[in-house]
Amino acid sequence: MELLTFINDHGLPVVGLRRGDEIIDLSPCVSDLLSLIDGGSAALEQVRAYAEGATTTLPLAGVRLLAPIPVPRRNVMCVGKNYAAHTRESYEARGEAVEAIDYPVIFTKTTTCVNGPYDDIPYDAAVSEQIDYEAELAVIIGRRVKNATRDEAMAAVFGYTVLNDVTARDLQTLHKQFFKGKSLDGSCPMGPWIVTADAVPDPYALRITCRVNGQLRQDSAAETMTFDIPTIIGHLSRGMTLLPGDIIATGTPSGVGFAMKPPVFLRPGDVVECAIEGIGVIRNRVAGGE
Amino acid sequence: MELLTFINDHGLPVVGLRRGDEIIDLSPCVSDLLSLIDGGSAALEQVRAYAEGATTTLPLAGVRLLAPIPVPRRNVMCVGKNYAAHTRESYEARGEAVEAIDYPVIFTKTTTCVNGPYDDIPYDAAVSEQIDYEAELAVIIGRRVKNATRDEAMAAVFGYTVLNDVTARDLQTLHKQFFKGKSLDGSCPMGPWIVTADAVPDPYALRITCRVNGQLRQDSAAETMTFDIPTIIGHLSRGMTLLPGDIIATGTPSGVGFAMKPPVFLRPGDVVECAIEGIGVIRNRVAGGE
Repeated sequence: MELLTFINDHGLPVVGLRRGDEIIDLSPCVSDLLSLIDGGSAALEQVRAYAEGATTTLPLAGVRLLAPIPVPRRNVMCVGKNYAAHTRESYEARGEAVEAIDYPVIFTKTTTCVNGPYDDIPYDAAVSEQIDYEAELAVIIGRRVKNATRDEAMAAVFGYTVLNDVTARDLQTLHKQFFKGKSLDGSCPMGPWIVTADAVPDPYALRITCRVNGQLRQDSAAETMTFDIPTIIGHLSRGMTLLPGDIIATGTPSGVGFAMKPPVFLRPGDVVECAIEGIGVIRNRVAGGE
Repeated sequence: MELLTFINDHGLPVVGLRRGDEIIDLSPCVSDLLSLIDGGSAALEQVRAYAEGATTTLPLAGVRLLAPIPVPRRNVMCVGKNYAAHTRESYEARGEAVEAIDYPVIFTKTTTCVNGPYDDIPYDAAVSEQIDYEAELAVIIGRRVKNATRDEAMAAVFGYTVLNDVTARDLQTLHKQFFKGKSLDGSCPMGPWIVTADAVPDPYALRITCRVNGQLRQDSAAETMTFDIPTIIGHLSRGMTLLPGDIIATGTPSGVGFAMKPPVFLRPGDVVECAIEGIGVIRNRVAGGE
C-alpha cells in the first residue's frame, strides 16, 4: 500500500491511499498516519478492506500532499556516512583524513524540518548560503522495539519513503555536531507516500537518484549501504526504545554539492528532485529567485 | 512559581504547583504542563489566581513526581562544551588537541530519555559500562521564536529546571556523533520542577553541583558558561523555529567521571544528585547493584 497525507476540501490534513493516479480518502476509518501506524496490522487490514470497498476516488493531481507524517513525535534520526563513496567525498571536501566508520554515525533533524514532497525549501542567505541536498531512503518504524535482533528489526519496519536531508554545510561544520546544520525549517522534504514494507521485498535494490535542475547529481546504482537496515535498527535500538512512527534516514550516496570541485550549493529557484525506484519522486524548489 | 507533574490518587499524571513542602493540585484548571506553556501569560495568570484561592494542598513528600514535561514534543536539545574547564577536560580525556569553540556545539537526546527527578537510571552492562553524569541547567522555551535577538531570546524563556545529561561515553565516542551515547532510555532525569523565569533574576548566579554517593564531583562556582542563554537561543533559532515546551540543556561544568584519572563511571547502586541553587535537587539511583 502507498499511504499519504493530503489536504482535503475543508483544509484538513487527512490520510489517503494512492492507487496510480488516484487517491482513496481514508478519513472515514483513520484520523492520521501516526494513529494508523500505532494500530499495527489490525489497523492496516481495516484500511485495506475499506479501500477495497471504496467506490469513490480523488485525482492525485488535484490535491496538495503534505509529508506522510507532517508532525513526527520526535526528531528524525539520520545515519551519516553510510555509503563508502560519500564518506570519502565528505572527508576529502573538508580536507580531513578518511576515518574508518565502524559504527553508524547517527544525528537528528528536528521536527520543524519536515516539509511536503512538492513544497518549497526555505532559503535565507543571512542564515546560510551553503544549502545542499542529500537524497535518502527513509525507514518508518511500525512498533516499539528495543535491543532488536536482525529479524526483530526487519519485523519492526512499517514502510519506506523518500527523504531529502537538506543540509546547511557551513552550520554543520561551524557547530561541530551536525544537528544545527541539519535542522533549518523545511529542510526535510519527505514523501510523496509511505510504501508499506510488504510491497518492498528488497529495499537495497531500489536505485536512489538526485537531480538538480534536471542534472543527475546522485545515483546509488554502483554503491551499497555500509550498514544495512537491520544493522542500523539494531544499533539504534540498543538500550533505546524505538517507537511507532519513528523515521530513520539511511544515508546518502556520493554526489552532494559541497564535494563537487569547486563546491556547488543550491540557489534560489533551483529545483531538486529526489527519486527512489519503486517508491516515488519528491520535487522541491528552493524558495526565492523569481 | 514552581510547576511540576505528579501522579495523582487515580494514577494519572497531573500538574501541580509547589509551595514549600506542599503541592497545590492544578488539575482543575490545566491538563498538562505543555498546555499550560502553550497558553502563555494568560494561562499562567489563571493558574496563579487559582493557586491563590486554593484551600487544599497535598504533602509534597506523599506523591511521586515525574519529569515536569514527561513526554516532550521533540528531542531535548543540549549544548556541549559550554564551560571552558569541562571543554579542556573532555579533549584531554580523549587525547585530542583542545579546539576553540566558536559556535555552540548542539546535539539532541531523544524523548524516551526523559526520566523522573527521583527515578532510577536504567543500567545494562551489555549496552554500556561507561555511564557518566552531567549536571546541567535546562531552559524551557515558552513561545515560538525564530532568528531571536537577545531580548527576544530572554523573553522566550518560560523557566528553568535541573537536568542530568546521562551519557554512555563509549557509545558517544564509537558512533562519532553524540546522539546515540546520549539517548539511552531513562538517561535524562529532570526536575523536580520548572521554576518560572520571573523567579530567576540571574540564572548565571545559580551554583550547579553534582554529587555521587555524597562525594562532590561537579561544582560550577568558579566556572562560567562560554555561551550565555540568549546567545544559545540566538544561534539555535537562526532559521529554525523554537517551540513552546522545547528543552535546552545549557552544558555541564568540569568534573565528569570520564575525565577523572583514571576514569570513574557510574555503577549499579550509585546515587547521583544534581543540584542547582534556587531551583532544586534531582536524585537518581543507578538501577541494579542490590
